[in-house]
Amino acid sequence: MKRLLKTRYASLLVAVAAVSLAGCATQPTATPPAAKAPATEAATLTAVSSANGVHEYRLDNGMKIIIKEDHRAPVVVSQIWYKVGSSYEHGGITGVSHVLEHMMFKGTEKHGPNEFSRIIAANGGRENAFTGQDYTAYFQQLEKSRLAISFELEADRMQNLRLDPAEVKKEVQVVMEERRMRTEDKPQSLTYEQFKAAAFVTSPYHNPIIGWMDDLENLTLDDLQQWYQHWYAPNNATLVVAGDVDPRQVAELAKKYFGPVKPRPVPALKPRREIEQRGIRRITVKAPAQLPTLFMGYKAPVIKTAKVDWEPYAIDMLAGVLDGGESARFTRNLIRGQQIAASVGAGYDLHSRLGDMLVISGTPSKDVSIEELETAIRAEIDRFKTELVSAEELARVKAQVVAAKVYEKDSIFYQAMQIGTLETVGLNWRLMDEYVDRLKAVTPEQIREVANKYLIEDRLTVAVLEPQAMTSTTPAAHGGQHAH
Amino acid sequence: MKRLLKTRYASLLVAVAAVSLAGCATQPTATPPAAKAPATEAATLTAVSSANGVHEYRLDNGMKIIIKEDHRAPVVVSQIWYKVGSSYEHGGITGVSHVLEHMMFKGTEKHGPNEFSRIIAANGGRENAFTGQDYTAYFQQLEKSRLAISFELEADRMQNLRLDPAEVKKEVQVVMEERRMRTEDKPQSLTYEQFKAAAFVTSPYHNPIIGWMDDLENLTLDDLQQWYQHWYAPNNATLVVAGDVDPRQVAELAKKYFGPVKPRPVPALKPRREIEQRGIRRITVKAPAQLPTLFMGYKAPVIKTAKVDWEPYAIDMLAGVLDGGESARFTRNLIRGQQIAASVGAGYDLHSRLGDMLVISGTPSKDVSIEELETAIRAEIDRFKTELVSAEELARVKAQVVAAKVYEKDSIFYQAMQIGTLETVGLNWRLMDEYVDRLKAVTPEQIREVANKYLIEDRLTVAVLEPQAMTSTTPAAHGGQHAH
Repeated sequence: MKRLLKTRYASLLVAVAAVSLAGCATQPTATPPAAKAPATEAATLTAVSSANGVHEYRLDNGMKIIIKEDHRAPVVVSQIWYKVGSSYEHGGITGVSHVLEHMMFKGTEKHGPNEFSRIIAANGGRENAFTGQDYTAYFQQLEKSRLAISFELEADRMQNLRLDPAEVKKEVQVVMEERRMRTEDKPQSLTYEQFKAAAFVTSPYHNPIIGWMDDLENLTLDDLQQWYQHWYAPNNATLVVAGDVDPRQVAELAKKYFGPVKPRPVPALKPRREIEQRGIRRITVKAPAQLPTLFMGYKAPVIKTAKVDWEPYAIDMLAGVLDGGESARFTRNLIRGQQIAASVGAGYDLHSRLGDMLVISGTPSKDVSIEELETAIRAEIDRFKTELVSAEELARVKAQVVAAKVYEKDSIFYQAMQIGTLETVGLNWRLMDEYVDRLKAVTPEQIREVANKYLIEDRLTVAVLEPQAMTSTTPAAHGGQHAH
Repeated sequence: MKRLLKTRYASLLVAVAAVSLAGCATQPTATPPAAKAPATEAATLTAVSSANGVHEYRLDNGMKIIIKEDHRAPVVVSQIWYKVGSSYEHGGITGVSHVLEHMMFKGTEKHGPNEFSRIIAANGGRENAFTGQDYTAYFQQLEKSRLAISFELEADRMQNLRLDPAEVKKEVQVVMEERRMRTEDKPQSLTYEQFKAAAFVTSPYHNPIIGWMDDLENLTLDDLQQWYQHWYAPNNATLVVAGDVDPRQVAELAKKYFGPVKPRPVPALKPRREIEQRGIRRITVKAPAQLPTLFMGYKAPVIKTAKVDWEPYAIDMLAGVLDGGESARFTRNLIRGQQIAASVGAGYDLHSRLGDMLVISGTPSKDVSIEELETAIRAEIDRFKTELVSAEELARVKAQVVAAKVYEKDSIFYQAMQIGTLETVGLNWRLMDEYVDRLKAVTPEQIREVANKYLIEDRLTVAVLEPQAMTSTTPAAHGGQHAH
């Protein structure tokens, strides 16, 4: 389901680990990692379960291994997911997870800076990493016989990262520049960031993944060192492998490389539950921009927090009725019909680790005010409270979900991504297989119920981007920054 | 200046250290502490400066000692100020400074739980403690010959606090109950808390001094232990003594007790500067209440953050013109004149450690809407932007400030309090003596300038308490809780 995917991964920050493919041919092939493999006598491997072609193991150091067989092409995707991300941070060190993700490419005692990326590229692989609110993940895609290379490198940087003061300083500057480009200079991102900060008071979703600029400016080597020591432990990681592999062989290979990594105590995470919202919140963000933008967020439960288990699926379905292609209500009624919105969409991530929001964002059509857009969106929201969604609309959303799922199945990367996401936020990967059935089971009455329960003024935060004239020098200056 | 004092100390939390005076007569007199005094060979005492009857010393463990002579009565006030408070905290451990303040009365290896308070009471003394955004302070008032008792006890709990798991658990419950009484059950406090959280996004002033309920619920012994180890070091403390004393003798006595306390590295504090506000923010808080309340806060510099040194004094003066007795503008125009407000006041603390706000709060008169009150307040604010404040008004505020200063001088407690506050937020205690002159130097043009610069919509946060009907059972239930 494209809408869901878009929403779910919209807030990820992808590291600057793109490999210069042009340079690959001239790179020496990596030293075969087998020779360097650590002793494995002590490690044991436990097969936990196996279902639908997914095999789960656990190493005695606490590391979880999930393997998904997919034999359509001779490739393998390997992903390491750490249970850490911006929602593990707090004021003062926001952005540390993401900066650490960057630093993970800067070398260990064994492998020098950026050698990780060079070795993967030299072996014809692709790799990247991303930091989200609830996870930090690293992945490689390789020809299947080369999986050991990925394991050797990941096991090495899980325990031997070298944090060089000069590299840290340089990389923090890189991230600050990234923040300037992606947030400060993008009025919609700036507004979205402040919108989330207004909506979440005590939840760590208050803070942006990239971190506040002042915290980045004051991030220290020591902060990174502590973050690495606290969270980069095998007992806080999940290895997900998908592709043309033999599960048992992969598990044994994982044991060989990751088995000897020592487990460490991982800090207890404070719940930091969001306080009860007791009325509407509304903020204005003035910034140089061409067009106004509206964000409306209704606080809503997610699978992890829901007291009634079908509710997140009903909210997800409702979002699908609003936004999901040409015949969805937003497009049909607000963009084409009344021509109130130039663009308008809805997003909701039922797999968040903490309570989240159904977020609606839009830009009014020319000569339409932001107030008119808000009124029209509210009318669409209110319709759900009295009128039952038609069978045709539900059928359409369900068909889209099924189609999207089929499409996803075509990508071993997304399959691994889903498993990793679910496991890392503390949900079972089996939910992945249940998703379509749970959505299909949603009734029109359930959608009406969640609308009346959650899409109410007392749960609403509204942010308006109020465009300011761009000065004549602004675009040039910005262009210069973007050129980095 | 009563208004300033009220504002400055309005947000303090005073510990439950009140002594049962009835029990005093039957208490045994405290063991003379001299016998227990630690060896002092290693400690050295440096006289730093001396002016206006204030003497400053420093111990070689980094502890600062400031002594104010005042010989009108044979009493002495002793205060220990630690540079730690709620603005040193972050999401997850909010409230830890205040809970630790409570725990400081729960005993050391030498003195059992609550013995501190018993000994002070048995010696005819009074004592208490308070936690603010920027400091945690402990004080005793005693007949002057008994100062050593206070020093012995404070030096003991500075290094030997015993954090008993059962006591911690109990005390966290006490604080949670305190929060219920002072915040959850007080609609104005609840609104004020959310108002501040909306106004401050990245500044630690986002969090309440007492802490968020969920953080209190999850506060651990380990959190308290770490907080104590991090911040309760002599090099992070200022001892302020005021009263009928000989400065050199007091300094020598302080050396005897505090000199042997080992200094410890104190964590570097992240600046966590507030992000630039880019437009008005507005929140509604619905809660059972009789009357609506309005809070309006304009972000403004304070002495610590001001780039132009007279600005905080001009803002303070402006607040004095609005609110400061019967002839101040708020009372004259909004309460008596137009009868729009039942109550309305302005507060501004120029001695905050971090950027702060000029806060206006008010309740409309019967049959006046909250919108009308806001409009009337805004009109008063806007008047400053064009119209110069009259000489008579300035003279009135100045006269009040001078009178208040004379009144304050009458209290050795407040003198010590001012010295402690200034030193602990990183300002020099000499500012105390400059204050009247700096205020007197403010011109009508300067007031107009700060109004135009800071009292603008883009710096404004508005919070409205929207009263909800109280259920018939609510008052009784609340009464029950308050009876604790």
